[in-house]
Amino acid sequence: MKKLFIISFLLVAIAFTGSGQRKIVNFPDLPGYVTLKCDFHMHTVFSDGNVWPTVRIDEALRDGLDAIAITDHLEYTPKKDFVPVDHNAAWKITEAYARERNLILVHGTEITRKMPPGHMNALFINDAALISRDSVWDCYEAAIKQGAFLQWNHPGWKSQQPDGIPRMYDIHHRLINNGWLHGIEIFNDESYYPQVFTIARQNNLALIGNSDVHAVISEVYPEAEESRRPMTLVIAKERTHDSLKEAMFAGRTLVYFNDMLAGKEEFAKPFFYQAIKVGKPFYQNDKTIFFEVTNNSDVPFYLINGIPNAPASVTLVANSVTRIAISKKVTSPLVYDVKNILTGENEVLTIELKY
Amino acid sequence: MKKLFIISFLLVAIAFTGSGQRKIVNFPDLPGYVTLKCDFHMHTVFSDGNVWPTVRIDEALRDGLDAIAITDHLEYTPKKDFVPVDHNAAWKITEAYARERNLILVHGTEITRKMPPGHMNALFINDAALISRDSVWDCYEAAIKQGAFLQWNHPGWKSQQPDGIPRMYDIHHRLINNGWLHGIEIFNDESYYPQVFTIARQNNLALIGNSDVHAVISEVYPEAEESRRPMTLVIAKERTHDSLKEAMFAGRTLVYFNDMLAGKEEFAKPFFYQAIKVGKPFYQNDKTIFFEVTNNSDVPFYLINGIPNAPASVTLVANSVTRIAISKKVTSPLVYDVKNILTGENEVLTIELKY
Amino acid sequence: MKKLFIISFLLVAIAFTGSGQRKIVNFPDLPGYVTLKCDFHMHTVFSDGNVWPTVRIDEALRDGLDAIAITDHLEYTPKKDFVPVDHNAAWKITEAYARERNLILVHGTEITRKMPPGHMNALFINDAALISRDSVWDCYEAAIKQGAFLQWNHPGWKSQQPDGIPRMYDIHHRLINNGWLHGIEIFNDESYYPQVFTIARQNNLALIGNSDVHAVISEVYPEAEESRRPMTLVIAKERTHDSLKEAMFAGRTLVYFNDMLAGKEEFAKPFFYQAIKVGKPFYQNDKTIFFEVTNNSDVPFYLINGIPNAPASVTLVANSVTRIAISKKVTSPLVYDVKNILTGENEVLTIELKY
Amino acid sequence: MKKLFIISFLLVAIAFTGSGQRKIVNFPDLPGYVTLKCDFHMHTVFSDGNVWPTVRIDEALRDGLDAIAITDHLEYTPKKDFVPVDHNAAWKITEAYARERNLILVHGTEITRKMPPGHMNALFINDAALISRDSVWDCYEAAIKQGAFLQWNHPGWKSQQPDGIPRMYDIHHRLINNGWLHGIEIFNDESYYPQVFTIARQNNLALIGNSDVHAVISEVYPEAEESRRPMTLVIAKERTHDSLKEAMFAGRTLVYFNDMLAGKEEFAKPFFYQAIKVGKPFYQNDKTIFFEVTNNSDVPFYLINGIPNAPASVTLVANSVTRIAISKKVTSPLVYDVKNILTGENEVLTIELKY
Repeated sequence: MKKLFIISFLLVAIAFTGSGQRKIVNFPDLPGYVTLKCDFHMHTVFSDGNVWPTVRIDEALRDGLDAIAITDHLEYTPKKDFVPVDHNAAWKITEAYARERNLILVHGTEITRKMPPGHMNALFINDAALISRDSVWDCYEAAIKQGAFLQWNHPGWKSQQPDGIPRMYDIHHRLINNGWLHGIEIFNDESYYPQVFTIARQNNLALIGNSDVHAVISEVYPEAEESRRPMTLVIAKERTHDSLKEAMFAGRTLVYFNDMLAGKEEFAKPFFYQAIKVGKPFYQNDKTIFFEVTNNSDVPFYLINGIPNAPASVTLVANSVTRIAISKKVTSPLVYDVKNILTGENEVLTIELKY
Repeated sequence: MKKLFIISFLLVAIAFTGSGQRKIVNFPDLPGYVTLKCDFHMHTVFSDGNVWPTVRIDEALRDGLDAIAITDHLEYTPKKDFVPVDHNAAWKITEAYARERNLILVHGTEITRKMPPGHMNALFINDAALISRDSVWDCYEAAIKQGAFLQWNHPGWKSQQPDGIPRMYDIHHRLINNGWLHGIEIFNDESYYPQVFTIARQNNLALIGNSDVHAVISEVYPEAEESRRPMTLVIAKERTHDSLKEAMFAGRTLVYFNDMLAGKEEFAKPFFYQAIKVGKPFYQNDKTIFFEVTNNSDVPFYLINGIPNAPASVTLVANSVTRIAISKKVTSPLVYDVKNILTGENEVLTIELKY
Repeated sequence: MKKLFIISFLLVAIAFTGSGQRKIVNFPDLPGYVTLKCDFHMHTVFSDGNVWPTVRIDEALRDGLDAIAITDHLEYTPKKDFVPVDHNAAWKITEAYARERNLILVHGTEITRKMPPGHMNALFINDAALISRDSVWDCYEAAIKQGAFLQWNHPGWKSQQPDGIPRMYDIHHRLINNGWLHGIEIFNDESYYPQVFTIARQNNLALIGNSDVHAVISEVYPEAEESRRPMTLVIAKERTHDSLKEAMFAGRTLVYFNDMLAGKEEFAKPFFYQAIKVGKPFYQNDKTIFFEVTNNSDVPFYLINGIPNAPASVTLVANSVTRIAISKKVTSPLVYDVKNILTGENEVLTIELKY
Repeated sequence: MKKLFIISFLLVAIAFTGSGQRKIVNFPDLPGYVTLKCDFHMHTVFSDGNVWPTVRIDEALRDGLDAIAITDHLEYTPKKDFVPVDHNAAWKITEAYARERNLILVHGTEITRKMPPGHMNALFINDAALISRDSVWDCYEAAIKQGAFLQWNHPGWKSQQPDGIPRMYDIHHRLINNGWLHGIEIFNDESYYPQVFTIARQNNLALIGNSDVHAVISEVYPEAEESRRPMTLVIAKERTHDSLKEAMFAGRTLVYFNDMLAGKEEFAKPFFYQAIKVGKPFYQNDKTIFFEVTNNSDVPFYLINGIPNAPASVTLVANSVTRIAISKKVTSPLVYDVKNILTGENEVLTIELKY
């Protein structure tokens, strides 16, 4: 009797699921900024995706995102025998739907060519139809006229670069010289392109990570933590469309995928220190000091290369307090590399734990 | 190749699991206090439990508890042919182990008699062996001499009260009159005793909820949120053994079980308001205002009995932001009953959402 | 090193997921027949669903179904501003796709009217466009001309029957008298209509259960056993389109939903006995005989109302061997009601366990 | 209302869990034999384990095992201050308990020495106390006198062999020469020793795989398929203690761990062919033939090294039907290596699919 009563709560919970809740994703803000969780690359039935555009909004809310762009292909519309080509269809269908749910919707499209130049997303546009031109350069020009942020997608995609290594071609240099290229995907779907660190640094591009989802998000990225959907974390002044845009053009991003973070040290370092808290020793005996490190974020941190007499490696499990037992021979701080915070093609973040 | 690299992180994570991490349980603190997550009733191979005492410490850490008591039966030791009776064995085995892991260990025992008086836990004792006496009253007296907190266990246990209804007998009145009874379980394992609200109020007893676990915690309470292990939430001045004890004797507790909270309104109300945050409206159109309620806790709140023109019910999903769309005909605040915050035998908490 | 090697297998597994596997669903065949798992009611972007038609095929394969029908509404096409109305679109898009994956695809459509007559599916048709007529009776006539199986959908749907109780109106009696109505949903999505047992019996209709899915199957019915998608189990002579059709018109069906079966005793009884096997006693002592019941199916069976001295209830967990300890005072067979095999509006199946 | 009714079934199910069900593990029998699922290496509070012996029985039933041995250390009893040494304690406590649950219990113990000779289990003994001797050779002799099967445990354990490579020492050769050594672990806990294939072949030893569990099985091997507990599969004439013993001494075993099988080709090959069924082509077009392979077992099979024009690799997902689309240029049968069926130190099984 009582048990049934209790169970009835669960039913209410089930009934309400999907009615507009956004899951809280525990990624820390940087001082003076908010960390916006974003995905700027996804498809619907209006190009080669398999779902209706509102599904992308529902998925984003459920996953706790702050902003998304739906970016159907301009040049690849394999469903056109049944669904007439309308490059702004997804935008028209979702604009009000997203606004009423407090999700920032970025108007976007994907300019889809063979390599070079490969695929580019134009974000923060007004009208995708005007960008659909025969010459790819005309596409870019039309996008830039609308104030677009141009993002180079999966630059090492094996269908276009069989060895998986991103390369700058003439057209990319021309874009750079014009100031027309603003971002580049270091992560797409399940592919990571380490060389993008160098390309981005040399050309002052924002690092981006996206799902490029065509199917259903919950099936591509099942619930287990480690397979959470990839995100671009944008370090914005406020949670608004315009602040997001300002931050993107300013290159203030980190990329999250497979429990890893990739980004510039200037953003990665404060992200780490905002996520964790090192406590004072709670106990000591003759030989050993015990203290705790609290990781208040959804990202685990894998510390490696510990100094002598300290633990060689420590995992700061997500949303957990990790106890560290340390020999009295060692003096604070402990220095570690964070194996899953990538700050360059062959670099990871180095941090200190002061206890 | 890359994928294997990524996967290798996970292995590290697995390897470190269990090495001392405490999961963070998101229950809010009350202003000026810390909310300690506790379980004061559990068994080991030293009475009729199935695990070694250190297992109880490991389980508690994994579940993010702050304090536990192991309370083996004084009078029921069915394994004694193989494990000699030692009423302080679990304490001796776990005291240093817990201290080095920053878990508050409360020395306890269970005085195990037929009803009346039924079972009582003596907590905050020094020596369980001295409490083992023939006369149950002598047991109580010996416990009180050690400064014990006496807690009446599962007062409506069907093996001792076939109708499941807790009843005060003479001996309970004598304990009350002596000032010797301090707490009472309103929840035990999977049993909820609503009448305990009244007994506790009339006799100034702290409300307590415990697992009374004999087997393995992770098997009795599998991971799904709604079956999380029961806890007594103690509203203490600090996270120390002595502050815990002070708060218990002062009766500052809430009980958590099956996604429900039970307790006095004076503690339940600030708990709710510390857990949630109502945002300013983020959008409105002709007819409707949209605002969000953030629930930063691990407890979902099921709001019911909404006023006319407002949603009849709203679920504030745990660790989620819930959007509420409300007619402009309605004026702030919205008033709701919280179906899963019990403040009396037939009472639930009433709250307001001011937007 | 070794561990990475091992893990690499898992990656292979993940890579292959979705490449055409059908999960084996353990539902027993009846002697001389095969039990086909079917869902005859689902929607796509061509009416008010949210997915592309091929998604329905992929979902069905993953769930181990043998046959499905996509049944977009003829009269309700809210996406028509972006997706032109084509009543055969889903069929054209999926026919070859299903054939190459060994899924039986039934051509269908939903005739969507207010009550009476409510919604009807026409199954086994050739051309849905020809069935789209102003008069509902003309629709039925056109469907019957194509040899359709007419199935009355969710007859107690609260949007059309506020009290949730299915009722026969004149037009239903006319259909019956013409021999034009062949089946009726006793289960739809999450609604169960017990009165359908009586309507089906009086009018010789096949019992049907369907998902009526509009969103994504894996999100509506998450993986936990008890929320598995509803199915019509068709007892066919062979696993072919024509055998399926023959069995449907002959009314050889059982309905599976929420770990329950509903259907005629003549099918439910052999289903139960084919699913389980009662072993000979494996041990006995002075007072007790021990034997095992093997349940080789994915359906748990909840046995209740045991005879005196036998267990009052026994759960034959799915895909498990259940031990039964029985007093020697009892003589074989044990008689039980199977709580989750419904054979009538107020009837459940009674079975015997001979040990 | 209805929903609550449905939910109530689940409660019944929960209530019955643990009441003696054995999960069915889908491993095929070989013609004329039954495949017994076994674990011959585990610990309790009577040596350095953390649980009471009956827990091992409950775990084994839940995991669908047919036989286990509890093998507490003779020489390592770190809990002896609280639990007096009794080498037969686990046996005495569980013998009747296992018999009433139809689990085959093998009486065993672990002779625990530094390397050489390392650790050995003595299985099928009568009295572990008589085997506890100062000289390890005396231990072996006493065990053999009782008819023991001697099993060399984790021969490459890094605490005893820092490079992880198993090596035969003089004492092992002496045991072999006496005919006293019968089996060897190729898998233990999470360690795999490939060189054991060669040692076993040269010395005619049965291959064994065990959990060597000290903690709680469900926590060491969480539910996900790929982490299922390791097992020795014994190919016995009947499901009895004596048939098990006969098969062990005859060396008819396969070892299952991490979704891999290791064993002699003479057992691995029929295991594979009993697990799968290749269907006749269900469809073909101009270029392609489509057929299905049914894998009725809980083991996935990863087929690699496909012939030209055939798929390079195919995963036969466990309990699933896999569709294979094959060019008409190819002629039946397809030949594959099975990546996860290990038949030697550097060998995997080769199989054919005839369609």
